[in-house]
Amino acid sequence: MKTYKHTVQYYECDKMGVTHHSNYIRFMEETRVDWMDNLGYGFDRMEAEGVVSPVIAVECHYKHPTTFKDVIEIELRVAEIKRLKITLAYTMRCRDMVVCEGTSTHCFLENGKPVAVEERFPEFYEKMRNEGEA
Amino acid sequence: MKTYKHTVQYYECDKMGVTHHSNYIRFMEETRVDWMDNLGYGFDRMEAEGVVSPVIAVECHYKHPTTFKDVIEIELRVAEIKRLKITLAYTMRCRDMVVCEGTSTHCFLENGKPVAVEERFPEFYEKMRNEGEA
Amino acid sequence: MKTYKHTVQYYECDKMGVTHHSNYIRFMEETRVDWMDNLGYGFDRMEAEGVVSPVIAVECHYKHPTTFKDVIEIELRVAEIKRLKITLAYTMRCRDMVVCEGTSTHCFLENGKPVAVEERFPEFYEKMRNEGEA
Amino acid sequence: MKTYKHTVQYYECDKMGVTHHSNYIRFMEETRVDWMDNLGYGFDRMEAEGVVSPVIAVECHYKHPTTFKDVIEIELRVAEIKRLKITLAYTMRCRDMVVCEGTSTHCFLENGKPVAVEERFPEFYEKMRNEGEA
Repeated sequence: MKTYKHTVQYYECDKMGVTHHSNYIRFMEETRVDWMDNLGYGFDRMEAEGVVSPVIAVECHYKHPTTFKDVIEIELRVAEIKRLKITLAYTMRCRDMVVCEGTSTHCFLENGKPVAVEERFPEFYEKMRNEGEA
Repeated sequence: MKTYKHTVQYYECDKMGVTHHSNYIRFMEETRVDWMDNLGYGFDRMEAEGVVSPVIAVECHYKHPTTFKDVIEIELRVAEIKRLKITLAYTMRCRDMVVCEGTSTHCFLENGKPVAVEERFPEFYEKMRNEGEA
Repeated sequence: MKTYKHTVQYYECDKMGVTHHSNYIRFMEETRVDWMDNLGYGFDRMEAEGVVSPVIAVECHYKHPTTFKDVIEIELRVAEIKRLKITLAYTMRCRDMVVCEGTSTHCFLENGKPVAVEERFPEFYEKMRNEGEA
Repeated sequence: MKTYKHTVQYYECDKMGVTHHSNYIRFMEETRVDWMDNLGYGFDRMEAEGVVSPVIAVECHYKHPTTFKDVIEIELRVAEIKRLKITLAYTMRCRDMVVCEGTSTHCFLENGKPVAVEERFPEFYEKMRNEGEA
């Protein structure tokens, strides 16, 4: 599995000198964008096809702080696929430690209505299933 | 209970025209800062006393999108108080709808070691308990 | 002249413990949005009329640092009105000091082409001229 | 001269679908950090030696919009070296166009007092002079 890397920027650190906790939610988005691109179903392709994929929920468990110049390695896996939503899980590592674990849950909307990925994007669905079982 | 208000800024909205999901985590922090100030135990007072209060976990459930100029009204309540950590719950409303529900879990560190709020800040602990039971 | 107020948030401060310099550009936008609303020509009204107003240039001179919980008072004045662009000037004060001075320059686009504010929005133009001369 | 690359993230784009103008100030910081690291005088080394380098001024001229997934190539050059401050200039390119040009001006502080780079960090000063003349 491919690992996404994010280098922590100066402007991402807070007064305590550590990466502000809200930024991990953004790192998860970066990872997801990269992962979907690799599967051939990028945000831009979906938007061009009239489908948007809003975030329904996120969860983040902070294990160790990171700071300026740290390189965070992020692994994404498909945690759950339901008819109308999927949950992705992220494991973020830095200096041989798990620094953060998170999940994000998404649906897919076309003309404002939920669509089943399995029917609307069967190839993407199949790829996700294979990743999830890996 | 006092309600904290956040007006959504232009730079907080994303390509889909809605408030980017990561920003709600920041609105939760704004609300928490305001709430602790009202209790007389602000971030700055704690930091001045050598205590920092990192975020251990956050959770966010997005119900309805908000956008530029929306005023989000946020209510905070104490969801759980344990010896070494507390969980706060946030309900965010806009245009008569619950738009987002979240929680944040925190510990308190002094010289890098966890401290029990009940012993270190008994008055703050008491105030939190009263709010939680309200 | 009305003053816009921005309270510095925890997540807006950097490792040095001061407001990150990029955020002042955002405070300028907040002030501009508020000012245009007061003139009756908000971003949303313009966008609804098919006109967008991109930023062509910004400039920022940092005089004194600000930090968490500081209330920055921002005054906006019209510095220059040309046929196809306007320049706004911002003076930001905190604790009786000028902490930052900035400018932003804007054009107005309709269907991707520059429009003259004087012709497209004569009332807005007149109001700006009056403010500029005040 | 080495070029720094920034890939525009989804969360960096605004309601108009383009990179929010405030983010270019952050891209300039990323480039500066990378450049100083390459010279052997990173932010962290300076901070460890008790020297901080605040931004005194920034300027940004936006030529063309960029958007999600665009790779912005940024060149930094030393524009001016004075006794107590330096000015860096940035040229940002994307899809064969100059999309943004900016400058940032910095001083160096030790115990809150300005220091002359030439005396405090003579080797760094020499390297900057060489880059500036290149």
